[in-house]
Amino acid sequence: MSVFTPVTDADLADWLKNYAIGRLDALQGISAGVQNSNFFVTTSLGRYVLTLFETMPRAELPFYLHLMAHLARHGLPVPAPIANRDNEYLGSLSGKPAVLVSRLAGKSDMAPDVARCTRIGAMLAGLHLAGQSFGRKQANPRGASWRQHCAARVRAHLPADEQAELDAELVFQSGFNLETLPQGVIHADLFRDNVLWDGDYVGGVIDFYFAGQDALLFDVAVTVNDWCADADGQLDAARTAALLASYAESRPFTPAERAAWPAMLRAAALRFWLSRLEDFHLPRAGEMVLVKDPGEYRRILRLRAASNTTPLLPA
Amino acid sequence: MSVFTPVTDADLADWLKNYAIGRLDALQGISAGVQNSNFFVTTSLGRYVLTLFETMPRAELPFYLHLMAHLARHGLPVPAPIANRDNEYLGSLSGKPAVLVSRLAGKSDMAPDVARCTRIGAMLAGLHLAGQSFGRKQANPRGASWRQHCAARVRAHLPADEQAELDAELVFQSGFNLETLPQGVIHADLFRDNVLWDGDYVGGVIDFYFAGQDALLFDVAVTVNDWCADADGQLDAARTAALLASYAESRPFTPAERAAWPAMLRAAALRFWLSRLEDFHLPRAGEMVLVKDPGEYRRILRLRAASNTTPLLPA
Repeated sequence: MSVFTPVTDADLADWLKNYAIGRLDALQGISAGVQNSNFFVTTSLGRYVLTLFETMPRAELPFYLHLMAHLARHGLPVPAPIANRDNEYLGSLSGKPAVLVSRLAGKSDMAPDVARCTRIGAMLAGLHLAGQSFGRKQANPRGASWRQHCAARVRAHLPADEQAELDAELVFQSGFNLETLPQGVIHADLFRDNVLWDGDYVGGVIDFYFAGQDALLFDVAVTVNDWCADADGQLDAARTAALLASYAESRPFTPAERAAWPAMLRAAALRFWLSRLEDFHLPRAGEMVLVKDPGEYRRILRLRAASNTTPLLPA
Repeated sequence: MSVFTPVTDADLADWLKNYAIGRLDALQGISAGVQNSNFFVTTSLGRYVLTLFETMPRAELPFYLHLMAHLARHGLPVPAPIANRDNEYLGSLSGKPAVLVSRLAGKSDMAPDVARCTRIGAMLAGLHLAGQSFGRKQANPRGASWRQHCAARVRAHLPADEQAELDAELVFQSGFNLETLPQGVIHADLFRDNVLWDGDYVGGVIDFYFAGQDALLFDVAVTVNDWCADADGQLDAARTAALLASYAESRPFTPAERAAWPAMLRAAALRFWLSRLEDFHLPRAGEMVLVKDPGEYRRILRLRAASNTTPLLPA
């Protein structure tokens, strides 16, 4: 947890009086999470998760909360924000913006098989289809523009060979315009640890706080780079084919997307190489972010740039 | 099931293309339910219930669906209607108005103990509190006006002693104006078979198709008459006290409600005596409603009218 804000039972019990979910039975901190403080909250009427936003600007939060509400309303297993008696999702607790969401069932699987990759392809397509009727727009906070600016910030901290690699990739990516591809609201961080499995089903897709408007194919690339890679970063052919075929069954890929796919896998790898470089070289004061190895995504980017390893999108 | 409309796998699979919940895996009819046709629907992304409305006017359905959506949004375990890709809840299938809702966990308990009556009191208060911010209004379809008209319809079918009892109760009830009591949207049919238990928790409150605007206390009386009665209809003191105290913890009763309580228990008994008399003597053509014994609620009405058995509302 990046910054921990304590919540007392008494403060929470008082706060819950403006909800319709009964009396507080139990409050328990959750040790996972790198951006927000999270707690399990049990009341006489149900089980919920309380999130206190530690660093995100309050003005950006309604986009995420209404997105989660929209996707839940469309039947997808995402945390549904709970409205208080004033019909509002967003409140304040311990001096921080705060929201209660529904608690979802299941746990993550860091070694998913072909069947689970098939299920994730269908889920990602479901998120994209439901998102098409979402009325609000907010840019992908880690989109093409952020990648340019982040590269400029981290470049000086890199050895010469990494600088050259980064420069070459930025030149390569500047030749592509993602805005000509099908757009929509994307999760943008659908890693294995953001999915809870409840038996064979996806019990929950969590952590929508990187979501935004971008090319849908960028989301597919982020997801494939994580779910379908072997330990060395190489894509597993069977899992990749299963995820892509399952996605395409709900939302067939366009010819422009098929042409853009190899570059998109690289753009998605670049995004995580850059954010990990930034977390490593330029950690923000007051945060205790779990620093992940930037080298993992530098390796993935190199592998995706080797064109003979790129799987094709299904026609 | 009152009237059964078949749904084919092919028709449903086609219909689901306008949703974002993946591909149809399984369709299974549900034998319970007296007004609508219900089916379990399993897709690649989750488990849902499909309802086809057999007799209810289409124009009345949005009130119920938006009420369920509103209560779900407030964190209560009710069937949440699923929006299709046009952002609509209500569609058409096999020529009938049709809706998909979330599938809830648990099963009914026809012999609830004090702990479960405590939980139900809190749940009913939660429904009432969340309902206060619901923007739509539709009258209780089995309210005071319906009771007058239904009595006129069934009277001629009753023996003289029952006619006299019914006349006396209508005169007694005409002395009370429920509209002076706290109002809101009420479930109006919160019987034990409309609640699913998931361990110690309420996993689901179902069947909102009698809901409407009325005195909140009428809903409390309907609930107490069912949940807290012994086999002979007499109220069990411990369960009644537990349900009422738990409700009052979230929504304290007003002095006017305490004064109206004995009459309200009788009004709630009268409502079910009347509807069962109507189902028995005046069954509607084309329906196969499960006819329940009217005598049970005649007995409950008599017991509630014997003032020495009426429990007091908590102050």
